[in-house]
Amino acid sequence: MTSVVQSLPSVHQSLFEAKAVKGLTFEQIAQRVERDEVWVASLFYGQVRCFSSSPESSDAKPTEVEVKKLGKVLGLQEGPLLKHFHTHWFPERGDLTPMPPRDPTLYRLYEIILVYGYGIKSVIHEKFGDGIMSAINFSCNVKKVEKNGADNVQITLTGKWLPYDFHE
Amino acid sequence: MTSVVQSLPSVHQSLFEAKAVKGLTFEQIAQRVERDEVWVASLFYGQVRCFSSSPESSDAKPTEVEVKKLGKVLGLQEGPLLKHFHTHWFPERGDLTPMPPRDPTLYRLYEIILVYGYGIKSVIHEKFGDGIMSAINFSCNVKKVEKNGADNVQITLTGKWLPYDFHE
Amino acid sequence: MTSVVQSLPSVHQSLFEAKAVKGLTFEQIAQRVERDEVWVASLFYGQVRCFSSSPESSDAKPTEVEVKKLGKVLGLQEGPLLKHFHTHWFPERGDLTPMPPRDPTLYRLYEIILVYGYGIKSVIHEKFGDGIMSAINFSCNVKKVEKNGADNVQITLTGKWLPYDFHE
Amino acid sequence: MTSVVQSLPSVHQSLFEAKAVKGLTFEQIAQRVERDEVWVASLFYGQVRCFSSSPESSDAKPTEVEVKKLGKVLGLQEGPLLKHFHTHWFPERGDLTPMPPRDPTLYRLYEIILVYGYGIKSVIHEKFGDGIMSAINFSCNVKKVEKNGADNVQITLTGKWLPYDFHE
Amino acid sequence: MTSVVQSLPSVHQSLFEAKAVKGLTFEQIAQRVERDEVWVASLFYGQVRCFSSSPESSDAKPTEVEVKKLGKVLGLQEGPLLKHFHTHWFPERGDLTPMPPRDPTLYRLYEIILVYGYGIKSVIHEKFGDGIMSAINFSCNVKKVEKNGADNVQITLTGKWLPYDFHE
Amino acid sequence: MTSVVQSLPSVHQSLFEAKAVKGLTFEQIAQRVERDEVWVASLFYGQVRCFSSSPESSDAKPTEVEVKKLGKVLGLQEGPLLKHFHTHWFPERGDLTPMPPRDPTLYRLYEIILVYGYGIKSVIHEKFGDGIMSAINFSCNVKKVEKNGADNVQITLTGKWLPYDFHE
Amino acid sequence: MTSVVQSLPSVHQSLFEAKAVKGLTFEQIAQRVERDEVWVASLFYGQVRCFSSSPESSDAKPTEVEVKKLGKVLGLQEGPLLKHFHTHWFPERGDLTPMPPRDPTLYRLYEIILVYGYGIKSVIHEKFGDGIMSAINFSCNVKKVEKNGADNVQITLTGKWLPYDFHE
Amino acid sequence: MTSVVQSLPSVHQSLFEAKAVKGLTFEQIAQRVERDEVWVASLFYGQVRCFSSSPESSDAKPTEVEVKKLGKVLGLQEGPLLKHFHTHWFPERGDLTPMPPRDPTLYRLYEIILVYGYGIKSVIHEKFGDGIMSAINFSCNVKKVEKNGADNVQITLTGKWLPYDFHE
Amino acid sequence: MTSVVQSLPSVHQSLFEAKAVKGLTFEQIAQRVERDEVWVASLFYGQVRCFSSSPESSDAKPTEVEVKKLGKVLGLQEGPLLKHFHTHWFPERGDLTPMPPRDPTLYRLYEIILVYGYGIKSVIHEKFGDGIMSAINFSCNVKKVEKNGADNVQITLTGKWLPYDFHE
Amino acid sequence: MTSVVQSLPSVHQSLFEAKAVKGLTFEQIAQRVERDEVWVASLFYGQVRCFSSSPESSDAKPTEVEVKKLGKVLGLQEGPLLKHFHTHWFPERGDLTPMPPRDPTLYRLYEIILVYGYGIKSVIHEKFGDGIMSAINFSCNVKKVEKNGADNVQITLTGKWLPYDFHE
Repeated sequence: MTSVVQSLPSVHQSLFEAKAVKGLTFEQIAQRVERDEVWVASLFYGQVRCFSSSPESSDAKPTEVEVKKLGKVLGLQEGPLLKHFHTHWFPERGDLTPMPPRDPTLYRLYEIILVYGYGIKSVIHEKFGDGIMSAINFSCNVKKVEKNGADNVQITLTGKWLPYDFHE
Repeated sequence: MTSVVQSLPSVHQSLFEAKAVKGLTFEQIAQRVERDEVWVASLFYGQVRCFSSSPESSDAKPTEVEVKKLGKVLGLQEGPLLKHFHTHWFPERGDLTPMPPRDPTLYRLYEIILVYGYGIKSVIHEKFGDGIMSAINFSCNVKKVEKNGADNVQITLTGKWLPYDFHE
Repeated sequence: MTSVVQSLPSVHQSLFEAKAVKGLTFEQIAQRVERDEVWVASLFYGQVRCFSSSPESSDAKPTEVEVKKLGKVLGLQEGPLLKHFHTHWFPERGDLTPMPPRDPTLYRLYEIILVYGYGIKSVIHEKFGDGIMSAINFSCNVKKVEKNGADNVQITLTGKWLPYDFHE
Repeated sequence: MTSVVQSLPSVHQSLFEAKAVKGLTFEQIAQRVERDEVWVASLFYGQVRCFSSSPESSDAKPTEVEVKKLGKVLGLQEGPLLKHFHTHWFPERGDLTPMPPRDPTLYRLYEIILVYGYGIKSVIHEKFGDGIMSAINFSCNVKKVEKNGADNVQITLTGKWLPYDFHE
Repeated sequence: MTSVVQSLPSVHQSLFEAKAVKGLTFEQIAQRVERDEVWVASLFYGQVRCFSSSPESSDAKPTEVEVKKLGKVLGLQEGPLLKHFHTHWFPERGDLTPMPPRDPTLYRLYEIILVYGYGIKSVIHEKFGDGIMSAINFSCNVKKVEKNGADNVQITLTGKWLPYDFHE
Repeated sequence: MTSVVQSLPSVHQSLFEAKAVKGLTFEQIAQRVERDEVWVASLFYGQVRCFSSSPESSDAKPTEVEVKKLGKVLGLQEGPLLKHFHTHWFPERGDLTPMPPRDPTLYRLYEIILVYGYGIKSVIHEKFGDGIMSAINFSCNVKKVEKNGADNVQITLTGKWLPYDFHE
Repeated sequence: MTSVVQSLPSVHQSLFEAKAVKGLTFEQIAQRVERDEVWVASLFYGQVRCFSSSPESSDAKPTEVEVKKLGKVLGLQEGPLLKHFHTHWFPERGDLTPMPPRDPTLYRLYEIILVYGYGIKSVIHEKFGDGIMSAINFSCNVKKVEKNGADNVQITLTGKWLPYDFHE
Repeated sequence: MTSVVQSLPSVHQSLFEAKAVKGLTFEQIAQRVERDEVWVASLFYGQVRCFSSSPESSDAKPTEVEVKKLGKVLGLQEGPLLKHFHTHWFPERGDLTPMPPRDPTLYRLYEIILVYGYGIKSVIHEKFGDGIMSAINFSCNVKKVEKNGADNVQITLTGKWLPYDFHE
Repeated sequence: MTSVVQSLPSVHQSLFEAKAVKGLTFEQIAQRVERDEVWVASLFYGQVRCFSSSPESSDAKPTEVEVKKLGKVLGLQEGPLLKHFHTHWFPERGDLTPMPPRDPTLYRLYEIILVYGYGIKSVIHEKFGDGIMSAINFSCNVKKVEKNGADNVQITLTGKWLPYDFHE
Repeated sequence: MTSVVQSLPSVHQSLFEAKAVKGLTFEQIAQRVERDEVWVASLFYGQVRCFSSSPESSDAKPTEVEVKKLGKVLGLQEGPLLKHFHTHWFPERGDLTPMPPRDPTLYRLYEIILVYGYGIKSVIHEKFGDGIMSAINFSCNVKKVEKNGADNVQITLTGKWLPYDFHE
């Protein structure tokens, strides 16, 4: 019954605290780190890492440059941040929310799968063939849009098309 | 282990069969019924209904006009279609997929909640305040987009912003 | 097996303790904070937040005025209360009771869904059409009423009608 | 994936069909049977029975008079109705909806327990002491009310107060 | 894997320790507190409270007189006992055993529901009509009886008959 | 959603039907078969069998004499009854109710384990030592008793005391 | 408790029957259809489909050529086979085995994840970086190999490396 | 993810440590305590207690003599051992392994029930009639036997036959 | 709620019926088929198959000789039996009992794992080292033994010792 | 929400830390300890032990030689390492990942069972007969291979063939 933030490793808690002290939004941090806003938010929750293709840093973490920018924006020392993302060697994801989600905001995303899942799936198959939308080569963003004079939340999920291919 | 289509009421199976015989896509049907493609696909699966605000048909179903258009496009008789949507009086939704989904295409949507759920949620709260994205006053569509020279599936979820409001 | 109160963040425990020391009921606190009694009780449990529509405080928490009133009624310092509700940035709800509830008082609410759920649902649809009662734009209260000479608990749930609307 | 109505015993299906043919609402039927609307809807779903205290009909079913009225309102023969409610001797309840509910309308009732359960429970205890709201000596109704210019669903749950009493 | 006693709040642990030091059985304590033996045992486990109907102490706990007697019998100070039962304001029950029970003694009670549940239920309905045996206005006791020359455990469950009554 | 009776093998359904036609209670049948009322009810539900110690009928079923008496009381032919209880060779029990029970009458028995389980268990251990109440060498009955001027359901569970004995 | 084969659509059952009549192994069929043996076995179970990239058959099924070859090998008519794979329009996968698997052969694969999952995962990350082995662009085969003079089952799983890439 | 031993009360951990220091096997300890080896191992895990029939020690624990022998064999002081088994008053069992077991050694026992359960059950019924093998009046041992030139684990489970007896 | 026998494929039901008609026990059948009694019982339930090492019949079933003997003993035609065991090509096991078992006879086996599992496991490791008792190269039998003047069920489980060996 | 590494006993955490400080890969450590890379990784996670067949060290752990080599490679003192693997006497495995896995890398292995499990199983049976691939006498390795110009993860699972053998 503690907040999810309080259950995160202490480095992550310090990210949230520094963000609060600085009065920054994820959007503002994202602009300065030059990454997407949801990517930054997920990084705060320990769920997002980018893959750096350079041979000398083939591991699972934000690049050194990104960590340094993050430290600068939040006024946190580079040292512990870099150490944290290196010690926490192998990425683990997906362990934050109980399923079905008990939080109403998260539950609505779950309900969309219950109600529209088969509709979405069949349109994917019809438009692309047999395969899936990747959740690995993927991005998403959240926007405020207006519809019929009311605020709407618009979540865009974009994932690479992966055709089913049982190669030999 | 039967297909989900085979587990639907027979009227719904006849919708799928007629669609196959006519060689129509959901997109083509959607254009002629003048509704969204995912809405049409979900209607085929018995999961989507539109609300008609006119007093004389305040129940849960596609409007009479839409049912008639649908029958026409698919070459199906109006009678049984109209009867089905009237007899099947009270809408029931959300009963098609086991959770967690076992189908890989559906599972990826579930995984997005596991991995990015908290990131999305926190950006929603930061942009809008305390509340949820409605899954009732809602729409979604599926598009093919190109990114870095590869096909991508893009799913856009748009739901009315509902601020938490414990009114008195 | 500790009490739910003991599992809450310490600020919430101090709310309960101050309430006990002052000998106040939720009803009395509610009158002074000028909010509903169930809203106050849920606030104590960390489950209810009001949405303040003013641009400069678009986050998820009781308004500053309400927090101050609360501190005054309970004889608690404003500082820690304000800090708590600001640090605990993103609201999380719904994590208090196991499901099915094991506590008999909570279980009876659950049993009502088991036994009367479909009856209630069908009357809602018949009276309103296809849609739901919002649990977001919502309020509830608990009253003592007399029926046939016996005390009765009367719980009134009032939620905005949200018609299913797959907009385009 | 069939409708819940289609999974009911055939007598119950005939109740729904006759209601559709006659074009009657639960409210209209309730007025003629002289019982509450939710009671009637729940009776259709096989979930509600009234207890007749007269010695000669001490079993679990609507009274003979009520069954006869129901038959008359719906234009159904008394015989099969009376036989059904007598053969279906021992009441069984609570078997209609999966938990957590997958249907959005039912889920919102469940979410209210998740989010407001402890708030409601603590107000009950504060107002009444240690005990429960009965779900047996109980009634509920559904009304359309207006709040801030919008339609609201108002569900009122009224149950006898039962103090915890470990008698000896 | 700790004992259930060790998971209880410390006041409850001190009850068990004092009982052990004094070498008293629940039966002996029960006689001196003038309550039932199972009631006392359940009080030790934090699961039973009696309702005192006097207006000035309408909360959920043993009466002051009972707490004082208990303290006296066990040689414990009144102060902490009274404080505990007052601070632990709202009763919570039913959270001690996993279900299905893993302990063999508890499991046999569970197995009785599995095997004889419907038999018991149908005899209840035949003898009383439609309704339930209350588990709120309730008592139980455990006795040693002899049957065919062997010791038998006899558990008697007595609960108020509550006829199903959908009042209006 | 069919009644439990309808899910039983057809011979069992014919027992219920004959009972209804004859207008007999379990108590009346029990008197004529010279067995306990709950035993008879459980036999109807296929859950109770007595063990006949005579070498020539060492299988799991009511004795031939009991089956014949049952047939006579209910006006059913001996042949199919005897055949049923012989063909249905190996007893299987405990498969009738979902757990937790969804039916309110059965649920109250379950709630008693949740709330009073540890109290009952500790009194058993204190009175008898380490062991269990048998659910195999067991009986139970249901009576109507009066308490404080109200009808009470009294369920008596009597099981042989089985001390834990890890023999060698 | 029927065999999994008996739960498949009838066309699939006819595949198994024809295979038995012809006395062919999956390996032999695979050679003639010019696909992998596990692919063929999974096709029999309705779980594998290949993606044909040609625009005029963008749906989820074996290519027409493969279906024809299959029919020829098994002595089955082309017509029903082609119709089946076309009517069964949208692929559904993953619905055959309960999890955890109850069958010992399948369970051992599950146990490998329990015991070696983290070891495999960490070696993947160390060798490749942050990402996953695709189960979509994937193949597997089963071979008999000898080790220390004993037969060994060797399963080779080969999936495309997909680096985590939150693109923008 | 700690070892099960580390999750036991500290007295039990000291038993394991003393055993390691002394370099004793359960078999050696068992010989000196004059109890069965599995009984001793289960005692270490807090799962086995013997029932001492003498009236003055009717509680759930090894006899005083056995505790003293155990202390002597392991070089542990009698005092804390005796205190532990007295304070830990009421036995609780069965809480050590998740079900299904995740450990492969334990899982194989579980798999035997899955695969051979009904075979064993039917042979029991055929040999004994309707009833069960007691798991209370019970013993088991583990031996090394040779079969076809290979080591085999032989587990013998011996439990008192308890015929189903619904006595009156 | 049908018997497990009734849920088996029809050939298996005919095995049980022929056994009943012939009045044979599993022991008698086992003697004539020259296999173990539990093996035969498990074969009736479709759970046991022996592996025949001859190259020309490398599939999963009793040998042809055994099937013929079985047919002879039970007076059943060889043809359908042989066909059944050949058509039912790939063995599937473990699908008969829900877990935890609801039947009391099966449950006691499950309880033994709960209570004695860790004791058995540790003695296995101490006697054999790191590894498991095979449930594949395995046998079990059920005997009636006398202990202290009472009938006891004795189940002997014998499985090949498989040392953990991560070969390279 | 802590990393799995942080939930391991401290000796294991020190293995990971030393590995990070030394900048060694599992492959490099494996070469020096002369064991397989996955074996080493699993040892770090506490999940793999080798069985040493020499009579004087028949327990569950890496051999003394291997522990010493490991200490040397990582620059850790032999003492605590040897003590840890001796105190942690009885192996426990399989307790690291929730099932279904929530981490995407682990989930894909799970999905392979869902989708290809029956295909793999049937090919195993066809190639080997009735039996299983051992997960005890087993090894696996992970390699980088190229396919169609892309990196592929190749996991090879090799387990001893164990024919089903109900010996007598």
